[in-house]
Amino acid sequence: MGLYSPLFHDSPLADFFSERATLQGMLDFEAALARAQEQCGVIPQSAVSPIEAACRAEYLDASALAQAAASAGNLAIPLVKQLTAVVKAQDEQAARYVHWGATSQDVIDTGMVVQLRGALVQAERLLVKLMQALALQVQTHADSVMPGRTWLQHALPTTYGLKLAGTLDALLRWHERLRELMPRLLVLQFGGATGTLASLKESGPQVSQALAQQLKLGLADTPWHTQRDRLLEVAGWFAGLSTTLGKFAGDFALQMQTEVAEVAEPTAEGKGGSSTMPHKRNPVTCAAILSTVTRIPGLMAMLYTAQLQQHERALGGWQAEWQTLPELATLTGGVLHNSLVLVEGMQVFTDRMRQNLDITHGLIMAEAVTLALAEHIGKAAAHHRIEQLCHRALDGGEPLQTLLEQDEQVSQYLGNQQIAQLLDPSTATGSASHFLHQVLARFRNSL
Amino acid sequence: MGLYSPLFHDSPLADFFSERATLQGMLDFEAALARAQEQCGVIPQSAVSPIEAACRAEYLDASALAQAAASAGNLAIPLVKQLTAVVKAQDEQAARYVHWGATSQDVIDTGMVVQLRGALVQAERLLVKLMQALALQVQTHADSVMPGRTWLQHALPTTYGLKLAGTLDALLRWHERLRELMPRLLVLQFGGATGTLASLKESGPQVSQALAQQLKLGLADTPWHTQRDRLLEVAGWFAGLSTTLGKFAGDFALQMQTEVAEVAEPTAEGKGGSSTMPHKRNPVTCAAILSTVTRIPGLMAMLYTAQLQQHERALGGWQAEWQTLPELATLTGGVLHNSLVLVEGMQVFTDRMRQNLDITHGLIMAEAVTLALAEHIGKAAAHHRIEQLCHRALDGGEPLQTLLEQDEQVSQYLGNQQIAQLLDPSTATGSASHFLHQVLARFRNSL
Amino acid sequence: MGLYSPLFHDSPLADFFSERATLQGMLDFEAALARAQEQCGVIPQSAVSPIEAACRAEYLDASALAQAAASAGNLAIPLVKQLTAVVKAQDEQAARYVHWGATSQDVIDTGMVVQLRGALVQAERLLVKLMQALALQVQTHADSVMPGRTWLQHALPTTYGLKLAGTLDALLRWHERLRELMPRLLVLQFGGATGTLASLKESGPQVSQALAQQLKLGLADTPWHTQRDRLLEVAGWFAGLSTTLGKFAGDFALQMQTEVAEVAEPTAEGKGGSSTMPHKRNPVTCAAILSTVTRIPGLMAMLYTAQLQQHERALGGWQAEWQTLPELATLTGGVLHNSLVLVEGMQVFTDRMRQNLDITHGLIMAEAVTLALAEHIGKAAAHHRIEQLCHRALDGGEPLQTLLEQDEQVSQYLGNQQIAQLLDPSTATGSASHFLHQVLARFRNSL
Amino acid sequence: MGLYSPLFHDSPLADFFSERATLQGMLDFEAALARAQEQCGVIPQSAVSPIEAACRAEYLDASALAQAAASAGNLAIPLVKQLTAVVKAQDEQAARYVHWGATSQDVIDTGMVVQLRGALVQAERLLVKLMQALALQVQTHADSVMPGRTWLQHALPTTYGLKLAGTLDALLRWHERLRELMPRLLVLQFGGATGTLASLKESGPQVSQALAQQLKLGLADTPWHTQRDRLLEVAGWFAGLSTTLGKFAGDFALQMQTEVAEVAEPTAEGKGGSSTMPHKRNPVTCAAILSTVTRIPGLMAMLYTAQLQQHERALGGWQAEWQTLPELATLTGGVLHNSLVLVEGMQVFTDRMRQNLDITHGLIMAEAVTLALAEHIGKAAAHHRIEQLCHRALDGGEPLQTLLEQDEQVSQYLGNQQIAQLLDPSTATGSASHFLHQVLARFRNSL
Repeated sequence: MGLYSPLFHDSPLADFFSERATLQGMLDFEAALARAQEQCGVIPQSAVSPIEAACRAEYLDASALAQAAASAGNLAIPLVKQLTAVVKAQDEQAARYVHWGATSQDVIDTGMVVQLRGALVQAERLLVKLMQALALQVQTHADSVMPGRTWLQHALPTTYGLKLAGTLDALLRWHERLRELMPRLLVLQFGGATGTLASLKESGPQVSQALAQQLKLGLADTPWHTQRDRLLEVAGWFAGLSTTLGKFAGDFALQMQTEVAEVAEPTAEGKGGSSTMPHKRNPVTCAAILSTVTRIPGLMAMLYTAQLQQHERALGGWQAEWQTLPELATLTGGVLHNSLVLVEGMQVFTDRMRQNLDITHGLIMAEAVTLALAEHIGKAAAHHRIEQLCHRALDGGEPLQTLLEQDEQVSQYLGNQQIAQLLDPSTATGSASHFLHQVLARFRNSL
Repeated sequence: MGLYSPLFHDSPLADFFSERATLQGMLDFEAALARAQEQCGVIPQSAVSPIEAACRAEYLDASALAQAAASAGNLAIPLVKQLTAVVKAQDEQAARYVHWGATSQDVIDTGMVVQLRGALVQAERLLVKLMQALALQVQTHADSVMPGRTWLQHALPTTYGLKLAGTLDALLRWHERLRELMPRLLVLQFGGATGTLASLKESGPQVSQALAQQLKLGLADTPWHTQRDRLLEVAGWFAGLSTTLGKFAGDFALQMQTEVAEVAEPTAEGKGGSSTMPHKRNPVTCAAILSTVTRIPGLMAMLYTAQLQQHERALGGWQAEWQTLPELATLTGGVLHNSLVLVEGMQVFTDRMRQNLDITHGLIMAEAVTLALAEHIGKAAAHHRIEQLCHRALDGGEPLQTLLEQDEQVSQYLGNQQIAQLLDPSTATGSASHFLHQVLARFRNSL
Repeated sequence: MGLYSPLFHDSPLADFFSERATLQGMLDFEAALARAQEQCGVIPQSAVSPIEAACRAEYLDASALAQAAASAGNLAIPLVKQLTAVVKAQDEQAARYVHWGATSQDVIDTGMVVQLRGALVQAERLLVKLMQALALQVQTHADSVMPGRTWLQHALPTTYGLKLAGTLDALLRWHERLRELMPRLLVLQFGGATGTLASLKESGPQVSQALAQQLKLGLADTPWHTQRDRLLEVAGWFAGLSTTLGKFAGDFALQMQTEVAEVAEPTAEGKGGSSTMPHKRNPVTCAAILSTVTRIPGLMAMLYTAQLQQHERALGGWQAEWQTLPELATLTGGVLHNSLVLVEGMQVFTDRMRQNLDITHGLIMAEAVTLALAEHIGKAAAHHRIEQLCHRALDGGEPLQTLLEQDEQVSQYLGNQQIAQLLDPSTATGSASHFLHQVLARFRNSL
Repeated sequence: MGLYSPLFHDSPLADFFSERATLQGMLDFEAALARAQEQCGVIPQSAVSPIEAACRAEYLDASALAQAAASAGNLAIPLVKQLTAVVKAQDEQAARYVHWGATSQDVIDTGMVVQLRGALVQAERLLVKLMQALALQVQTHADSVMPGRTWLQHALPTTYGLKLAGTLDALLRWHERLRELMPRLLVLQFGGATGTLASLKESGPQVSQALAQQLKLGLADTPWHTQRDRLLEVAGWFAGLSTTLGKFAGDFALQMQTEVAEVAEPTAEGKGGSSTMPHKRNPVTCAAILSTVTRIPGLMAMLYTAQLQQHERALGGWQAEWQTLPELATLTGGVLHNSLVLVEGMQVFTDRMRQNLDITHGLIMAEAVTLALAEHIGKAAAHHRIEQLCHRALDGGEPLQTLLEQDEQVSQYLGNQQIAQLLDPSTATGSASHFLHQVLARFRNSL
């Protein structure tokens, strides 16, 4: 566990990318390969048990392996050497059949796919829990009126429920995309030295199929050693999901500002304190999410840069994936975990939301008045007139309501009572409720 | 048309993002809005014709509009002003109903979606043509044996057909992804000032539906002013497709190297010449593709950075999309166009491929010999022995065949005739043909 | 002028990268080359005038040139062809000496350096004006006390002067870096086909020197066709300067939030209005800056990706610079221009800053109380006690002052008057004044 | 040590960023702070020794610290807590003065600067050794003629010395930039909670100075908690240097291609072998460099994205630096280390370079012939004629020499002997020697 893991990662998801899991993923490939080849008559039955028994990460010397990788250029070459030595110590004959017909990249790529499968299962679990928690909050705050904000300025009223429903709506699409990408991603890599399975002669397809079954993976139409779009797609999923949650955390932190104070992070002993300022309640969870999201554009830039993989095996691009993909996946795990903490425990101060609406002395309702006036004098003229009154209200600090009542042009068409009604934010949330119930309905159908 | 357009763009696709098309896209929204609102009884019937008639890009003063956008912060605000003036000149009543209930971002986003729809139709057309051309080449070169290369070194033989099939396989997945994303992407943006359609009161949903039908777009469950995952998804599609083709162009250029000379770009008068060196035949089309692909990671980094859009309308992120998305789309159009030029007209020198196989005096077949020997002395021992002989062959320049025949250990198990057979590349393409026919079959089924 | 130019660009700086300027930059190289070669006796004197006379962008057919570039792979090849034709029409002999010994990249790279020189002069002019305007504001607001904010929460008081001085401090470093990079950047590119100037035989160095003098550029020790660190450095300068100003604009927009309202953008007719909401005063200038800054990480990612230029001329990387560098430069011009608008015309509401300090009922001064108490009971104990009281203040809405006075432990050591003093923000700005005067002094010395 | 460290890192440089070094860097700050404050009379003398004695990383519980960081939001808060507890166990009075007046970011930022200082010293050591090794190779290969290549095609002859001198030239600039940036970067961070050192009252400047002296760091004019240009600059240095070496490694790998075979990586037991192909000698060191360089654009995109740090302490941007900067530094260490291995031990096959020149049967010398002919018939006509003959040579496989001798127009002006001379590459390296000696001289002066 690194110094920053608890802050930035989801521990169960990150475990799929531990050093141990990385090595075991490769060993699982080697064991499955032996079984599959025995099934197809490529290697003798007697070789399987010794190989399977040796395929345990704890038998490897990880430090020697890392050192050897500097000369070999990847982890699989020294891993196969160590594995062969372990098997040989038990059964010299069996040792001949270790890694038969496979290439380093078959081992490493399939290992990565297996790790990603685990990570995606955990990511989906977190995502579903998050959507459930969010749906609950959407419902709870379906009528919590608050200032809608555009350009970081008050615009018109909205509801906190609708605001949250926007995130839920996007998460539902990410869930849909996950379902679509999984069958494309979760396939075997098996092509041998140049993707022809030459060393298996005519048994290539048969062994491939058996191996895929052993590993419960799909079967690709052709090896994909230098066609990395599957990995790019899942990377894009992690990245996109993270930025959706980054938008959520960003808004949350803005609403937590001392002057806004509409929400707060769940409290916990020692959380969000400052080393010097006893009064601070820092949005620590938001910061952890936003920090990760700051790294997402770069992580994706890495993976796009890595797409140009030469010929049948790449020089640089492939190797760049080894740490980048796990980093992206584990950071996304942390974003999901932290978002769940936030959504489940968020403190929402609806009174303050309502008070904030009044901060502009009615200006936030200016559009409603404009439209009412527009019915009489046209949109452009109404807009122009109300804009003038708004600027006067802003400059002089007078309530818009007073200025409207006193304005000759306005009062010609709108009575004082109508003006008061038009300036009441709670009547002005338009289709907010309609929209959020559509999203909630889609969420329920998705379960 | 910019100085670099013919080099880097596909003209029909780029046309969807011309200044005129950008303005017309927004005007189409305004015209459709008038029709939809009239249908729903929100604005009078008499207002529709004057508005519709005015919605033509040639009536706008683009230069004044650009200038005004610097103060307004976007193009829609001055566009609505100019449009209103045009309508007013014809019909003062109708002018009141221009842009009724909509917000700038509704116009701009929906305009962008409409532009993207056009671009995707053209992109799909190019993609299908490209896959057809590629399938033909795969078939033609199903048996063109050539050196497979890993780490930029000869590895084992492969076929040019299989190499090309790898790209076709990836393109088929991109086509599949396009089909999946289109219904998510091609939806109306319509939410008014804060995404509540407040100014339409209870008619919001009804007008939304009528407007979506007018524009032949889908209807989103909720406005998505600051949820940009749909645009991110299509951007990822453009980017990923481009890098797949970048890998293809990169390999092509490597194969075109003077020393390799296995393929050449289609020739044309004045193409690929040098200003100083009359003998040059530069891979100009590959360079155009690779240049664009160099820009992809950054374009995607931009869009990921732009995802954190605040509250109900963003300050920076949204505005950053306006030029980035069209740039990504048009550059991808160019990549598709240039790839089609390349695949349709490529010169393939199969004799040279065959000759290149012999460059290492048989070393490329070393794995086959190793495996044959491994049946007698085990994989590790065989690998070790053959590796030694290979190094001797490399250092001394002697053919591997001679060294194998002379080696005591090898000749104990393998006869000279068997050695000769093992060293023949054309017998050593394993499952190449099986793989490429699987890809071709999937392509045929996809049509 | 593009639709977005007035919003995102500085017009004088952008002019250095217009299509016309791009072509003229290349023609200036060709004219200077003729003069230099005549000086060195490489070409006859009679050839110079006809070549010089022809080197005017208005003689070129830009559209035909763009079209031809698609086949040639760059603009220089068709430009030299058109130029030769223009010269030939006047003087067939002279036409023989056009572009003598140079390669396309010599023309294009040197043209780019000349464009960048112009852009940097304008950028420095804007930068100096911006620093002057900023220094004035720093001085004006040296004592404007306001809430310092960390994690988007009130921390301790600071002054607006110090806040602005942080930006000035960074701008001074950017100015220093500009001075350092200019001699490295502003050098001639001249190497001929592979960087050996082979065609000039022994006159290579002499012609290089004369050509550099003609163009008032430095002389590089060796051609740098595929060593692009100079361009990367200037790109990094544009990008870094922009993000420094992005931080400034970001803070400004946060301070402009409806609930914070400490500053406002300069007002102007039609500026920052909304198409639907008459009361809006959007931070349009901040948005323009932040939009650009959103694109910076990607633009730099492009240029880093483009660094791997192969051998003596690149396939993709060089070509990717052509539009990316100008885009980065012109966007930075816009950021400088918009920042200047902002700093020169900013509205600062110091009363509101002072009021915002009181929003937490004294909590913002908690650290001062903690330190005073720490002198009696130690830092940890004091921190713990005050933190408890702060949480009670936050939860109950009671002023911290009251709670402190009533607390047994606190009142044991601190009298009510001392507590009142400790809670006065204006006495608590520590070294703010010292720091800002150090920055101002450095600014004055830099002039 | 991670699984990938030996492959991708320089161990001495990476050690500066180990977990232990990270914690010790912060503790060194705390110890120096106590000493400095005692010097200035801020804390009692008796407090210093107990604090100093406790500032040892081995006293910390790293795992508990990591866990606590998830709540605290950074490492400094729990570190100060643990440190205070350690001091308190020895001396309750002294414990009161731990971390007096500092803020978390002071500790973390200064710790990072101290780590970077160590890393830069080691990076400079590696860089100087690399330049020395490279200068030696430049000299050795000053006359090794080889094909210059543009667009991955043979262009004109060059020398391997000049090719290498291009990299040396760029490295000299990176060295120059390092010297310029170090005084800007290596400064103390010390501002307290909001950058005003409020809690130190009037002693702020004095303590700052003493603390900077203790840590042998420069003194900044103002705290820089949210002005991160210094870190961005050093990041740009790491990144730029890496891509310069990436260009070198990329060319090296291209020259190592089986068909080109002009150079090879130094051999070592077990290095560059394949798990399946005994004949492979993979460019493992190049791959390690190129893999890292693939990640550079993304790492820089991260840091640019992280520049927008809000107000007086950031929410996301600062936190994103913690792992990104060390990653960039350690990867660059690996690039330097691997480049040194490559340059010191490279195998260069000058015979093969010479042979490769002949691959095009003289076409590579076409420019020389063109220029000779141009003296008689003008550049355009000569270019046109020779281009035709080149295409005929390429199409028919006939040597250019024969075609030139047989051509009526050519033979009218150029005799057979002159043609033979013009086609000799070794006479055609122009100013290559001049250029490389200029670079060597600058290198010698730089020592």
